[in-house]
Amino acid sequence: MTTHSFKKKLIPFAAISVISFAGIFGAAADAQAKSGQADSNAKVKNVIFLIGDGMGNSYTSAYRYLKDDPTTKLVERTAMDEYLVGMQMTYAEDPDENITDSSSAATAMAAGIKTYNSAVAVDNDKSEVKTVLEAAKEQGKATGLVATSEITHATPASFGSHDPSRRNMNGIADDYFDELINGEHKVDVLLGGGTDLLIREDRNLVKEFQADGFSYVDSKQELFADDNEQVVGLFAPGGMPKMIDRDADTPSLKDMTVSALDRLSQDKDGFFLMVEGSQIDWAGHDNDIVSAMSEMEDFELAFQAAIDFAKKDKHTLVIATADHSTGGFSMGAAGQYNWLSEIIEGAKRTPDFMAQRIINGAGVGETLEAYSGFKVTAAEIRSVETAAAKNDLRAVDNAIEAIYNARTFTGWTTGGHTGEDVSVYAYGPSSDNFAGHLDNTDQAKLIFDLLKADVTITDK
Amino acid sequence: MTTHSFKKKLIPFAAISVISFAGIFGAAADAQAKSGQADSNAKVKNVIFLIGDGMGNSYTSAYRYLKDDPTTKLVERTAMDEYLVGMQMTYAEDPDENITDSSSAATAMAAGIKTYNSAVAVDNDKSEVKTVLEAAKEQGKATGLVATSEITHATPASFGSHDPSRRNMNGIADDYFDELINGEHKVDVLLGGGTDLLIREDRNLVKEFQADGFSYVDSKQELFADDNEQVVGLFAPGGMPKMIDRDADTPSLKDMTVSALDRLSQDKDGFFLMVEGSQIDWAGHDNDIVSAMSEMEDFELAFQAAIDFAKKDKHTLVIATADHSTGGFSMGAAGQYNWLSEIIEGAKRTPDFMAQRIINGAGVGETLEAYSGFKVTAAEIRSVETAAAKNDLRAVDNAIEAIYNARTFTGWTTGGHTGEDVSVYAYGPSSDNFAGHLDNTDQAKLIFDLLKADVTITDK
Repeated sequence: MTTHSFKKKLIPFAAISVISFAGIFGAAADAQAKSGQADSNAKVKNVIFLIGDGMGNSYTSAYRYLKDDPTTKLVERTAMDEYLVGMQMTYAEDPDENITDSSSAATAMAAGIKTYNSAVAVDNDKSEVKTVLEAAKEQGKATGLVATSEITHATPASFGSHDPSRRNMNGIADDYFDELINGEHKVDVLLGGGTDLLIREDRNLVKEFQADGFSYVDSKQELFADDNEQVVGLFAPGGMPKMIDRDADTPSLKDMTVSALDRLSQDKDGFFLMVEGSQIDWAGHDNDIVSAMSEMEDFELAFQAAIDFAKKDKHTLVIATADHSTGGFSMGAAGQYNWLSEIIEGAKRTPDFMAQRIINGAGVGETLEAYSGFKVTAAEIRSVETAAAKNDLRAVDNAIEAIYNARTFTGWTTGGHTGEDVSVYAYGPSSDNFAGHLDNTDQAKLIFDLLKADVTITDK
Repeated sequence: MTTHSFKKKLIPFAAISVISFAGIFGAAADAQAKSGQADSNAKVKNVIFLIGDGMGNSYTSAYRYLKDDPTTKLVERTAMDEYLVGMQMTYAEDPDENITDSSSAATAMAAGIKTYNSAVAVDNDKSEVKTVLEAAKEQGKATGLVATSEITHATPASFGSHDPSRRNMNGIADDYFDELINGEHKVDVLLGGGTDLLIREDRNLVKEFQADGFSYVDSKQELFADDNEQVVGLFAPGGMPKMIDRDADTPSLKDMTVSALDRLSQDKDGFFLMVEGSQIDWAGHDNDIVSAMSEMEDFELAFQAAIDFAKKDKHTLVIATADHSTGGFSMGAAGQYNWLSEIIEGAKRTPDFMAQRIINGAGVGETLEAYSGFKVTAAEIRSVETAAAKNDLRAVDNAIEAIYNARTFTGWTTGGHTGEDVSVYAYGPSSDNFAGHLDNTDQAKLIFDLLKADVTITDK
């Protein structure tokens, strides 16, 4: 029996004391070096949990090579690399599927249970399960959810709401307002996309939040001009634009993270903040390497902001991981021993953006010349023109993505998710608890334990 | 500047003392829990370095799910999982290719330098570089190489020989005999495939080794009947059969590992042993999931044997990792959120074996029924018959593999290697030195350091 096979069978979890966990995971003496000078014995007051949706090992590796300085002999590390502590399993316990979706994985990380795909913080019998965000709020901590998807999308939803189906995004939005803990709204900071979900004909949740003292902001300027500890910030009708497509009014994931930390850190009881780089996954579903790397950069900058906060604060635990990988993305394809990322860095906009312009009437050649950043061949232009002749946005998008995939030797096997383990990064007090080989449910179990939360996990 | 960006720029390496390394990597107090009760402060007398060639994260994850006991709710860990300590970069410094081949990667792990693809323990200027095996021999330790490929293949070659090209396997075989350290043959135990390379018309190296006191064995029975501390064991003309295709005379990777440990552990000065699961990679090149999982099992059993030895010995450091991943293998393909491994476990032989029988005249239907372990459909039989009509072994093999890939939802993007990071596992004294995010060159640097080897690494 191993440490981890023991750990994953803990039922009920609450029976295990903090002291026995310290025994299982070992003394903390090693953490100072491993986690960059943090005092691992310090009390954990704040937790920042970052999720790169779809951010498999191929994505984190590829992003490093993309950002490499070609003038130096060796490859430079990313902001995440030095905090790598291990990996985690991601499998779902769904009657029909063993590869997880984002809500099942987020429920595992938020509540410590394996459940079916599309479950939002509910168990296999559809009973609601307590999340780490809810446990933090029960203890009087401030709480926040930040995402570049709709703020009601699967991942943030599984920390701050409960629903048998992720597709019920209206119901999830209602939960954010209606489900109270000790008489308070359970999420103090909601930043992301999704005006369509909160400002509806049947109900205007923004107005309801405002009536209860929350600020509402819908631009980067407003986000930073406001300093209310409670805020709803919505920056797009649905998902936000990808990083390289954003205008000056749209905050980055880092901007939202920094603003959330400014607000949450005013609570003397500490805080729990979940930050999702939502669209690494969306890029993977689309087999779009340009967008994938755009969103990796957005995530890395937010991660760095979290680390910067934690280094100063000294009582903040930062965890970063992924829910699964997406697309079967590989660096290298079709027998080529190369991944040629230069043209990805040169892209000024995503293929989706370029495709939309072409569908709106812009010429293929001029659009690609203007936004791709490289000299497009006549054959490449023809391949996109053939798609454009069908007046099919998706076909044009796919044709542009195919140019990038072919030129970079980027491989894909699926438009869905894949089942391999994903990396875990950790910094700060107790970060060594997260080292080694984890299950995604261990994330919640370890955080509940650090919070000394009143929760019994029964995996049904 | 991070711990690792510092570490990777160490030139010359020998200038860094053991004490400063302890500072960089942190105190060892945490290792007892992390590495399964080993005393991490014990002196490292022996090093077992295991390489799963091509064993990317998708392979180690998939193998776990393949071996899962379906009668339990949660997934069981593999023998490796509990020893996961981090990951490593694998990129090559080749003028034309940034994704590594096996010899460049093995040279990085054996000698601590980045070099060009196909280099065997030579630098970019083709000068020979000292390997950890050679450093161990200089200190009077016993040494061994074990592989399921030809023992002269890229990976073992890069620990025990020097050549500008991995393709010169005759020259590599000659090096094993001709290159002496302190007047002694530098490898005491050579176990794997490759009679064609050592017993040649121009030279019979087996006879030469025997004349110098080595035993020669060519079956599992002889391997275990002999107890000479120096042995050449060759069990196939080229690469050995894959695990599920082996007969009773052919040793497994575990058998060879156990026999090597029995011999090497007789040396009072300790030993260095490199063990390669060579054909995980070959299966990946072939996009053959059945063979990939066969070879993963072969590797896991050898890894377990190494751990068992180390747990008893208490002065043995065990490291396991991969040189790169292969094939762009994904669990899940074509939009399916499932990886259905049951029929892989049922396979009695590899697709290569089945294809050879069909090319030799056996009926397609009867062959598939006899060896696949599942009920083959008429359409599947027709797909293989179509290939068989061309009398093309490769086409028949591919047709059988396609059945497994389609039924299991296994994806592949390439017949070559891919560039993502690979997992690192470690156990025993100083195993915590290998935790976190490494470069493959760090493996050699850390081992040289533990050996207090007289070596200056200059990356050219």
